[in-house]
Amino acid sequence: TFTRGMQTVTLIPGDGIGPEISVAVMKIFEAAKAPIQWEERNVTAIKGPGGKWMIPPDAKESMDKNKIGLKGPLKTPIAAGHPSMNLLLRKTFDLYANVRPCVSIEGYKTPYTDVNLVTIRENTEGEYSGIEHVIVDGVVQSIKLITEQASQRIAEYAFEYARNNQRASVTAVHKANIMRMSDGLFLRKCREAAEKHRDVKFTEMYLDTVCLNMVQDPTQFDVLVMPNLYGDILSDLCAGLIGGLGVTPSGNIGANGVAIFESVHGTAPDIAGKDMANPTALLLSAVMMLRHMGLHGHAKKIEAACFDTIRDEKVRTKDLGGNSKCSEFTDAICQRVRDMN
Amino acid sequence: TFTRGMQTVTLIPGDGIGPEISVAVMKIFEAAKAPIQWEERNVTAIKGPGGKWMIPPDAKESMDKNKIGLKGPLKTPIAAGHPSMNLLLRKTFDLYANVRPCVSIEGYKTPYTDVNLVTIRENTEGEYSGIEHVIVDGVVQSIKLITEQASQRIAEYAFEYARNNQRASVTAVHKANIMRMSDGLFLRKCREAAEKHRDVKFTEMYLDTVCLNMVQDPTQFDVLVMPNLYGDILSDLCAGLIGGLGVTPSGNIGANGVAIFESVHGTAPDIAGKDMANPTALLLSAVMMLRHMGLHGHAKKIEAACFDTIRDEKVRTKDLGGNSKCSEFTDAICQRVRDMN
Ligand SMILES: CC(C)[C@H](C(=O)O)[C@@H](O)C(=O)O
Ligand SMILES: CC(C)[C@H](C(=O)O)[C@@H](O)C(=O)O
Repeated sequence: TFTRGMQTVTLIPGDGIGPEISVAVMKIFEAAKAPIQWEERNVTAIKGPGGKWMIPPDAKESMDKNKIGLKGPLKTPIAAGHPSMNLLLRKTFDLYANVRPCVSIEGYKTPYTDVNLVTIRENTEGEYSGIEHVIVDGVVQSIKLITEQASQRIAEYAFEYARNNQRASVTAVHKANIMRMSDGLFLRKCREAAEKHRDVKFTEMYLDTVCLNMVQDPTQFDVLVMPNLYGDILSDLCAGLIGGLGVTPSGNIGANGVAIFESVHGTAPDIAGKDMANPTALLLSAVMMLRHMGLHGHAKKIEAACFDTIRDEKVRTKDLGGNSKCSEFTDAICQRVRDMN
Repeated sequence: TFTRGMQTVTLIPGDGIGPEISVAVMKIFEAAKAPIQWEERNVTAIKGPGGKWMIPPDAKESMDKNKIGLKGPLKTPIAAGHPSMNLLLRKTFDLYANVRPCVSIEGYKTPYTDVNLVTIRENTEGEYSGIEHVIVDGVVQSIKLITEQASQRIAEYAFEYARNNQRASVTAVHKANIMRMSDGLFLRKCREAAEKHRDVKFTEMYLDTVCLNMVQDPTQFDVLVMPNLYGDILSDLCAGLIGGLGVTPSGNIGANGVAIFESVHGTAPDIAGKDMANPTALLLSAVMMLRHMGLHGHAKKIEAACFDTIRDEKVRTKDLGGNSKCSEFTDAICQRVRDMN
């Protein structure tokens, strides 16, 4: 079914609380009259020819066609040798930039206020190369792979992002004092990108120093760009500053408009199916998606309705300090969205 | 000169503010009648036979003889290929455990209270192997080296430390979901050590999750043990929680009692020689040293005098929010120490 003026997005509801928070997002999108129709796909890893893990063909085809996906949490398979589904998706679609805006949520108290930064993580290589060897008994090496091409691509992306999102500065995060060649290459590519984008301020900082400064005063940071593992660490640290993974959106961006937006929290099996989950992270990821698609009006409306509902304190899910159900929180957002239509 | 009942410690005053904060520590030790005499040595890297960087022979001999060192900040050489002096010292004396207690300082306000944890970092291998290659043009690999021996040694150390310091739990910090073989080996050794030390509670947690939880509630952590790079990151993060590197002590521990205690802040060339530096980090490192030497009475006295002076707020250095000079802060601590004698 194709409706005129609508864009189709692949929806991967995921496991645990995934389906209920996906329903919440769909309801809110409908209330906002967002011109999106959803193509739902299940994603569980399957073994393809030659024993290689892959995502189901119908999910792959849907993404190949729609280019844009929204994804809830996927459970981590425990079978030996089984890849993380999140990593497999990033790899399958070459989603090279992992983007996580961390913005303080008014009315939701943490020790920090006015956090407003974005971590941009190289998403394809580094410590995530998956190449490891036993050299001799009891001696293991893991390979951190840094390439000129991927470093340049992510550095360029960071500066483009800063420009397109009215952000003033980019900080390259590295340990080139220790990994002189690999992080050195990454840093060089950031410097080169900085040369090309002189309208954006550029600084460089050691990862350890960033962590120290971050917990002392996160407001000094704006856009941060870094290799894979550092991004994994720093994005979680920053999520912690504004209230955790339950309120932090995430986008995985590839070439030619391909992107998957996802909540990065877990499947929360203990509360799954109980109408208790907080849909905020998935909703804000969906808002990032709308902006990525150029639907800024709808994005703004939904985001405002979400933040207003939280600030108002009357209807909040348990993890946000309230007593409301997921569906009540969702309805409250829908009501605000309708009032704005 | 050898004085009966005195133990000799190698003192490396270091660069920048190093000499003045070393003088502060010596004064306070004298006021406390600590049975320590100092053997001062300069450390700048020199090129040995075969072009290998090494520390000056008289510093090496002094450490070999005394086994215990106290060290101020050393400036990072900028010459290409020149190693960090900190790393060179750790390597020269095989100081395999980097121990950083992070304890909230009463009266010195940060967003966190009641932080009381210790990071124990493997100090010899991991991402700090220094092995890197260009594979083909534009493709670099850095090798993270994890050995059974070093992992076992640090895991054992963490549990021994917990037991000897009345600490209830040890958390192994890892990314074995990504680096299954290397971090997997590290984690296995931690589990084995846990089996042998059932009086200490053992948990394991992903590094990213630790960072997230750390900034949300650091009081949940006690002793944390981890590979080299993770320790570099996490120890700085934790230092940030209690007020930064100006108040955080550090010890590098080797086999057979060998150890170097150091302040991990920089040389602060902008304020060097101006009697403005804060000697707290070096002093608290010296207190760790006293405990390491079994001089618990002197350790307790000096530590209490330092914390009382800070809590009192009347005499504080600028970085702690006061107006006092380094020498005034030092004198205030000396006075308190004398009152306790
Ligand atoms: C699930 C896990 C493999 C993943 C990672 O390490 O990248 C997660 O922590 C993330 O940040 O998306
Ligand atoms: C100075 C630098 C080489 C060192 C490190 O990376 O280990 C420092 O950050 C530390 O934590 O002692």
